[in-house]
Amino acid sequence: MTVPFNGSISRTQRVSLCVYSGFCTGVERAVRLAEGYLRERPGQELYVTGDIVHNAGVMRRLTSIGLKRIEGDAPPVGKTVLVQAHGISPSVEEVLVKNHNRIINGTCPILKANFDRFRLAEEQGFRSFLFGDRAHPEVEAIQGLLRDVVVFRDLEELSGLRNRVLTTDKIALIAQSTKPVDEYRRSAKMLVEQLKPQQLFQMHFSICAATILREEEIKEKAPLFSTVFIVGGKHSANTKKLVLLAREQCPRVHWVEDVEEARGYLALIQKSDTILIGGGASTPLQDIKAIEALFL
Amino acid sequence: MTVPFNGSISRTQRVSLCVYSGFCTGVERAVRLAEGYLRERPGQELYVTGDIVHNAGVMRRLTSIGLKRIEGDAPPVGKTVLVQAHGISPSVEEVLVKNHNRIINGTCPILKANFDRFRLAEEQGFRSFLFGDRAHPEVEAIQGLLRDVVVFRDLEELSGLRNRVLTTDKIALIAQSTKPVDEYRRSAKMLVEQLKPQQLFQMHFSICAATILREEEIKEKAPLFSTVFIVGGKHSANTKKLVLLAREQCPRVHWVEDVEEARGYLALIQKSDTILIGGGASTPLQDIKAIEALFL
Repeated sequence: MTVPFNGSISRTQRVSLCVYSGFCTGVERAVRLAEGYLRERPGQELYVTGDIVHNAGVMRRLTSIGLKRIEGDAPPVGKTVLVQAHGISPSVEEVLVKNHNRIINGTCPILKANFDRFRLAEEQGFRSFLFGDRAHPEVEAIQGLLRDVVVFRDLEELSGLRNRVLTTDKIALIAQSTKPVDEYRRSAKMLVEQLKPQQLFQMHFSICAATILREEEIKEKAPLFSTVFIVGGKHSANTKKLVLLAREQCPRVHWVEDVEEARGYLALIQKSDTILIGGGASTPLQDIKAIEALFL
Repeated sequence: MTVPFNGSISRTQRVSLCVYSGFCTGVERAVRLAEGYLRERPGQELYVTGDIVHNAGVMRRLTSIGLKRIEGDAPPVGKTVLVQAHGISPSVEEVLVKNHNRIINGTCPILKANFDRFRLAEEQGFRSFLFGDRAHPEVEAIQGLLRDVVVFRDLEELSGLRNRVLTTDKIALIAQSTKPVDEYRRSAKMLVEQLKPQQLFQMHFSICAATILREEEIKEKAPLFSTVFIVGGKHSANTKKLVLLAREQCPRVHWVEDVEEARGYLALIQKSDTILIGGGASTPLQDIKAIEALFL
């Protein structure tokens, strides 16, 4: 894949933003739902089932206009509750409904489609092997959705599941939508190596396009720049992967949460440096533009 | 996998038979059906839809007691017809039934199960990519069974199908049951590399255990012998693959159809040679034992 530059690279241009920057459509939608609700009803509260997205700045801004994060096990009663972009498990939703809350579903539509397909696979007798991080809300939602799901976080853990693979007639490989695509493909290949006659293997390519395109752009462009800034929350899995990919390609990569943190690196930048700025699916475009402005 | 030797290898033992030798259960069954029918009804004819199995010796023997191969496009009328182990397409079967023939189904039960699963995948909206040889009766049977199937014979041909892969939402990879297992796994990996978000990939591990076990045994044992004889029909795909695998591991490999052909190589054998004898799924055990007897 060749990713277009926004602007051409020359000796005089030192700064380039990644084309695939800013919120993905799922995050955009969830944030807009929250913002729209709160702006139209000043003074009202809106509860959310967790981080709408893994970005501290976004959460701070929404909290300042009335968003409340549900903490611990005590669900609100008779409130309006926004389901976070990562989705929630049916049992959590059930408790919210029982407590007379009004639900606004902020689940990313791509995740929603994935969840439906995973459930169909289970109905068809497939046992799911989920490539994901156990503590991630998307994974918790999927675990709540399926009766039987085996979670693994990396290839090493998958290789330890050999016995379960061998004793499962119908295997469905599924993934948290923001896991690294290269590792997901390697997981599939590892399973293909283990298959026996009459086994049925199914791979849901459930990693979202936003994740893949950002990764491919970083892989392609990072070697062309002397410095890369990756902007995004330190809890964001897809942002972290961008940092790791950039570090394979470029000697100087800074992972920053916001413009203030980026400012700390200004002293390291030379006039001759060329700078690439990118971010995860939960990083607002204005955070990236604010960092660009430091160099313009 | 470690394959047990039948007998131990020592300096004094020069000849070893492959453990996985002789007819696979599917071939065994089809031959027994033909033989049983003809022996119980001396003088009667039995028609067969093609080679019961790809072995000239077996076909000659059965022909001598009354088996008739249906040639060309003219179906018999009012006869008893045995379906060959590779199966036939529903349209061919329909013509036979319309012509008042009595059908004995000699289709290998493993193929039958595969065919049912392929059809289910199609009903569920999957488009099948079939790893197989276009002229092979098993492939013809599958092509007759499915409305839409894309056949490829090797990895090179599959790589040329990139556009069709990219435009298919639900891909089912299926295989002729006797194709080489390593290439089949490589085909799956090639497809996994091409997947895009939301695509669904399914792999039916439809290569039969008899094929896989024979291949693994040859890979494991061929390097331990100075000469390998592979016994089987020159039209047999799985026999050919055994020959190729053996040649990767052992400098002297002879592909022979029968004991007469093997006799031609006797002059090349030294007292110090060690000899391994194996064969494809359609090679009778007595053919292999007859060659062993040359050296005992």
